[in-house]
Amino acid sequence: MLLEEMTTEEIRENVNESSIAILPLGAIEEHGPHLPLSTDCIQPEYVANKVAERLGAYVLPILKYGQCSSTKNFPGTITLRFDTLRMIMEDLISELVRMGFRNIIVLSGHAGRTHMTALKLAGELILEEHDVDINLMILSDYDIAYTMNEIEIPVNDGHAGMIETSRIMAIRPDLVKGTAKSHHPNFPPFMVLKNPEQYFPTGIMGDPQLATKEFGERANEVIIDKLVEMIQRMVME
Amino acid sequence: MLLEEMTTEEIRENVNESSIAILPLGAIEEHGPHLPLSTDCIQPEYVANKVAERLGAYVLPILKYGQCSSTKNFPGTITLRFDTLRMIMEDLISELVRMGFRNIIVLSGHAGRTHMTALKLAGELILEEHDVDINLMILSDYDIAYTMNEIEIPVNDGHAGMIETSRIMAIRPDLVKGTAKSHHPNFPPFMVLKNPEQYFPTGIMGDPQLATKEFGERANEVIIDKLVEMIQRMVME
Amino acid sequence: MLLEEMTTEEIRENVNESSIAILPLGAIEEHGPHLPLSTDCIQPEYVANKVAERLGAYVLPILKYGQCSSTKNFPGTITLRFDTLRMIMEDLISELVRMGFRNIIVLSGHAGRTHMTALKLAGELILEEHDVDINLMILSDYDIAYTMNEIEIPVNDGHAGMIETSRIMAIRPDLVKGTAKSHHPNFPPFMVLKNPEQYFPTGIMGDPQLATKEFGERANEVIIDKLVEMIQRMVME
Amino acid sequence: MLLEEMTTEEIRENVNESSIAILPLGAIEEHGPHLPLSTDCIQPEYVANKVAERLGAYVLPILKYGQCSSTKNFPGTITLRFDTLRMIMEDLISELVRMGFRNIIVLSGHAGRTHMTALKLAGELILEEHDVDINLMILSDYDIAYTMNEIEIPVNDGHAGMIETSRIMAIRPDLVKGTAKSHHPNFPPFMVLKNPEQYFPTGIMGDPQLATKEFGERANEVIIDKLVEMIQRMVME
Amino acid sequence: MLLEEMTTEEIRENVNESSIAILPLGAIEEHGPHLPLSTDCIQPEYVANKVAERLGAYVLPILKYGQCSSTKNFPGTITLRFDTLRMIMEDLISELVRMGFRNIIVLSGHAGRTHMTALKLAGELILEEHDVDINLMILSDYDIAYTMNEIEIPVNDGHAGMIETSRIMAIRPDLVKGTAKSHHPNFPPFMVLKNPEQYFPTGIMGDPQLATKEFGERANEVIIDKLVEMIQRMVME
Amino acid sequence: MLLEEMTTEEIRENVNESSIAILPLGAIEEHGPHLPLSTDCIQPEYVANKVAERLGAYVLPILKYGQCSSTKNFPGTITLRFDTLRMIMEDLISELVRMGFRNIIVLSGHAGRTHMTALKLAGELILEEHDVDINLMILSDYDIAYTMNEIEIPVNDGHAGMIETSRIMAIRPDLVKGTAKSHHPNFPPFMVLKNPEQYFPTGIMGDPQLATKEFGERANEVIIDKLVEMIQRMVME
Repeated sequence: MLLEEMTTEEIRENVNESSIAILPLGAIEEHGPHLPLSTDCIQPEYVANKVAERLGAYVLPILKYGQCSSTKNFPGTITLRFDTLRMIMEDLISELVRMGFRNIIVLSGHAGRTHMTALKLAGELILEEHDVDINLMILSDYDIAYTMNEIEIPVNDGHAGMIETSRIMAIRPDLVKGTAKSHHPNFPPFMVLKNPEQYFPTGIMGDPQLATKEFGERANEVIIDKLVEMIQRMVME
Repeated sequence: MLLEEMTTEEIRENVNESSIAILPLGAIEEHGPHLPLSTDCIQPEYVANKVAERLGAYVLPILKYGQCSSTKNFPGTITLRFDTLRMIMEDLISELVRMGFRNIIVLSGHAGRTHMTALKLAGELILEEHDVDINLMILSDYDIAYTMNEIEIPVNDGHAGMIETSRIMAIRPDLVKGTAKSHHPNFPPFMVLKNPEQYFPTGIMGDPQLATKEFGERANEVIIDKLVEMIQRMVME
Repeated sequence: MLLEEMTTEEIRENVNESSIAILPLGAIEEHGPHLPLSTDCIQPEYVANKVAERLGAYVLPILKYGQCSSTKNFPGTITLRFDTLRMIMEDLISELVRMGFRNIIVLSGHAGRTHMTALKLAGELILEEHDVDINLMILSDYDIAYTMNEIEIPVNDGHAGMIETSRIMAIRPDLVKGTAKSHHPNFPPFMVLKNPEQYFPTGIMGDPQLATKEFGERANEVIIDKLVEMIQRMVME
Repeated sequence: MLLEEMTTEEIRENVNESSIAILPLGAIEEHGPHLPLSTDCIQPEYVANKVAERLGAYVLPILKYGQCSSTKNFPGTITLRFDTLRMIMEDLISELVRMGFRNIIVLSGHAGRTHMTALKLAGELILEEHDVDINLMILSDYDIAYTMNEIEIPVNDGHAGMIETSRIMAIRPDLVKGTAKSHHPNFPPFMVLKNPEQYFPTGIMGDPQLATKEFGERANEVIIDKLVEMIQRMVME
Repeated sequence: MLLEEMTTEEIRENVNESSIAILPLGAIEEHGPHLPLSTDCIQPEYVANKVAERLGAYVLPILKYGQCSSTKNFPGTITLRFDTLRMIMEDLISELVRMGFRNIIVLSGHAGRTHMTALKLAGELILEEHDVDINLMILSDYDIAYTMNEIEIPVNDGHAGMIETSRIMAIRPDLVKGTAKSHHPNFPPFMVLKNPEQYFPTGIMGDPQLATKEFGERANEVIIDKLVEMIQRMVME
Repeated sequence: MLLEEMTTEEIRENVNESSIAILPLGAIEEHGPHLPLSTDCIQPEYVANKVAERLGAYVLPILKYGQCSSTKNFPGTITLRFDTLRMIMEDLISELVRMGFRNIIVLSGHAGRTHMTALKLAGELILEEHDVDINLMILSDYDIAYTMNEIEIPVNDGHAGMIETSRIMAIRPDLVKGTAKSHHPNFPPFMVLKNPEQYFPTGIMGDPQLATKEFGERANEVIIDKLVEMIQRMVME
């Protein structure tokens, strides 16, 4: 169920304490010479829709803009400030609670540390401000992807690498423009960098040439299965 | 051209000072018992794409969340705070400028006064912070709709009324669920209201029963034509 | 009754839930070569005093500084930032409520859109923060002036034009320094402007040469009558 | 010269680097049963006008609202938050600099520590943000009053006490409503208090019964003389 | 009792409504050529420990960073912004209240006006946000030092002068590097200064050459005695 | 070299572009029934001093307060808000740059994700605001501890567990009060929790009973060695 296609009456009549809301988040961000800027949008939106189908959940309109650190100086990246993202999240989660939702999943396609912290801070604030019990799960689908043991993942695979390329090949093959050379950046440890892009000038961290559509499909399946299972457990507790 | 489907390389090679960026904005907001919550998204996204086609402009991913005042207490409305919206706009416009755009159009499907003021304040701040010349246009397609003299518009037509219903009938007829009774609210003049919905409990301001697909198509055409013309003039000056 | 001339004891003994407070707001802003910078202060202060006399209302000290957009680069304009004005209004309205007022009218001589939005946002916040019923009216006397049908108003009359000049001629003729040529600016539609003054270099929008003291007196009377009537209705409901 | 009575043209032609601007500030604040709420406005406005006459300085419209701590719970007090006052001051000083003033005096009738700190912080910020040399003086006329040795001042005279009562008797005798009993509060040392008014329930700190019009006139003269002298020295350096 | 050396269990079992918490605050700030940058830390930490011993109070970890105005441009000074300091104090006081303390003393070695105002504002906010009765005392040990009449204090003694030098000689003689020439700065009255250090280039206000260890010991004793006495009175009331 | 024990003159004469500053950060936070609240302070302060000795670096006064998430509801924890910590860091790093440092290491004993993000955001802001080249390293000593392969680390060792207990046994054995039972909490995956302490009621994550002084000494040595090496590389590049 896409919330945006529903009317106010349908929300009033159907949303209650056992309803589940899934809010997909993306980023508009450089993803190498072969993947589209919306790579981080395509994946969570796909997952959210599939998960919602299986659980009868409501999917919210995706927020396609996120907070980007290491790719911030590349053309095409559109980053929000940390505080902007945090405020949006406060507003969106808070409005879901107002509307009656008590089970809320925020699923981000972008997994940057700073980005995820903004989401978490927003969530903590809204929980503190409400006395009702709210189940609030905030994660990136990549948090799941990297813990899969059903599938072998190359060491050091990351941004625009093997998994991401495979997953886009599986979901939106029309947007994959060839492939790209592997690159494994050596960031100087623990340094705060003004120009992080100098360490991965092609915008790749990993090896896109190992990507296959089949791997992408399998990764998506595993992610969807695990997420469904986690949400079911969350709702039951 | 949808910016989100492009790669970083494509942006680097193609965007320059004569490029045009169009940023569509919506709102998730009650729109009567017959129109979807994303009514204010559907219209500007449609217009932005058509205008971009004719001008060779870049369309940014729509921001589907806006600031809502009078509908804020209805189920389904998801409002951002004024400051949240202002900060997002500052970020998005500022990133477009960083990327090289000097011609930027922000097209909002939602025309609320407070919402529009947030956009304008953001725009003014970014202009002040940059020394380069930037053509920045911020408008709602309803600013154009209500000045059409090609078409007769019923007096007091507004939120979820004749024009909006017609336009959605023209763009996404599958999402129009029947029709709704006309209502012309009498807000007490100049009062700040805690519960504005008490003055239009069905969420309608205007007469949806006058709506026709043909009128909607004509309105969309006029809006697109005028916007194309205004942008062309802006770019030439 | 001027609140500023009263003592704390007089407030304690007299202010109760049926008392009415009127807060006049102005702006220090360019008003052509013939009108004083305080044009937007003179009018609401005059109106507030007259209205208060007829209603037994309390008049607060005028805040003479406001938020100015299009005149911001002229010498003599002293603009507050949007957030500054919003915060002042939050404080003033909130203090009136603390003092016991439940009927509050904010009357602004300056009618800029952004300025008015700051007032409205402040009002909404204070209403949300209080559980008591508060009648809060926020308006510009120009909101009334332009809806008068008792009097013929020239098309496109605006800033420092026929009405404003007439009203100052009626209230403070000593401050009107001659007259000025008419000017009807052509702002490029919907553009955010860094230097809006280039479109009206004399600081005039309208035709001051049509102004007369008689028209000004009549306009003031009509505004006062209508405002008295609106407040009476507000208090009774 | 009252800036508010001038036109934009007059400012453009006359204000230059040797011009002097005086910004009077007040407070709307409980001042015992005998003095008006605007006691802190009446004094600096009087002084500013007299000083400006002697120096050919420009007087800005007084800001009648300030930040009040110990009187905040009395009826009639209208306090701004610390941050509000700071922001207003930033705006006003910054606008004076934009307009061309390089000699600016902020004269506050209210001398509360927190209030004065807000002014000072604002001033420091604006100085840091500008590269030009700006002479900025921020003081309360009470900073001068209490250092007078021309006149004998009773020990522990303060809020609504002998000096304040005398000065209002000299400037606006019509607003002095009788007198009031002396009170010398014993605030517990260094405690932050939620209800400071419990320590001076009549709102008096000092002895109003010692007040005379003659003393007030003399105090005003001394303050004006000293301020003129200090400004002259400031401008010359 | 040093809170930082205790365990969570010890806090849980021992802290109750009659417990006393002392939070020492310092500054890292230029103190002439002879005193260490932590001069304002050494003194309150010493006093806090002694007072706590006598009262059975809990001493919190000292915050060694404060807000510095007049010394801000000297090498070695590390100033916090006003808002930073205010926020820290809000957090620390609020956490003490959460932990169960109802008697809280904030003892600052640095006595700058702006610095002290930040502390006071923070304290006022926390008191307002809590309904329980909280005894909150905020002071600088210099507030006591300058009111001592047990000891003769040179006129105009101040920053890095006779008292400060004496007290460090008494507490940490190893950190006193010789002495320094006396200096009594003539700040232009009431001016906001961009470079206040030009008026005391050696960083001294007073006469360090009058300092003696004995005077320092005596001053410390007096301060400790008076503070113990004030806290006892506070707790009893 | 402890910066706090130096004078302003010593800083002026000695600090230059090749100087190294180390800022240790801690937290006051529950650490089981056996470790002191300042566990996260003791470790980085020890490491910072040792590293500074070997490199001739300047050690700043430790900031003993940090941001705590999972332990926030335990008695004794004193958490700063995210924004407070971020602002302090902005101030401290910015002041180091003003003083002339170009090599800055922020070493946090607390390794919470949110806490570390606050530090990183502050660092990024200061780098952006300055045009000079600044080497800025921000890390927790636990970032190093967990990558040691010189020493075998138990799986799932964490807060107040084997490594932390061992290190405090090595540095401040007098503050270790016995030991505590092992606990390995099962946090529900990706949930934002209002009361995280319910999942580890003793405040332990790991097995303190495996701790030894020898292991702690060895861990400290390894951390110091690696940090020295990393800083040397940073400075050379």
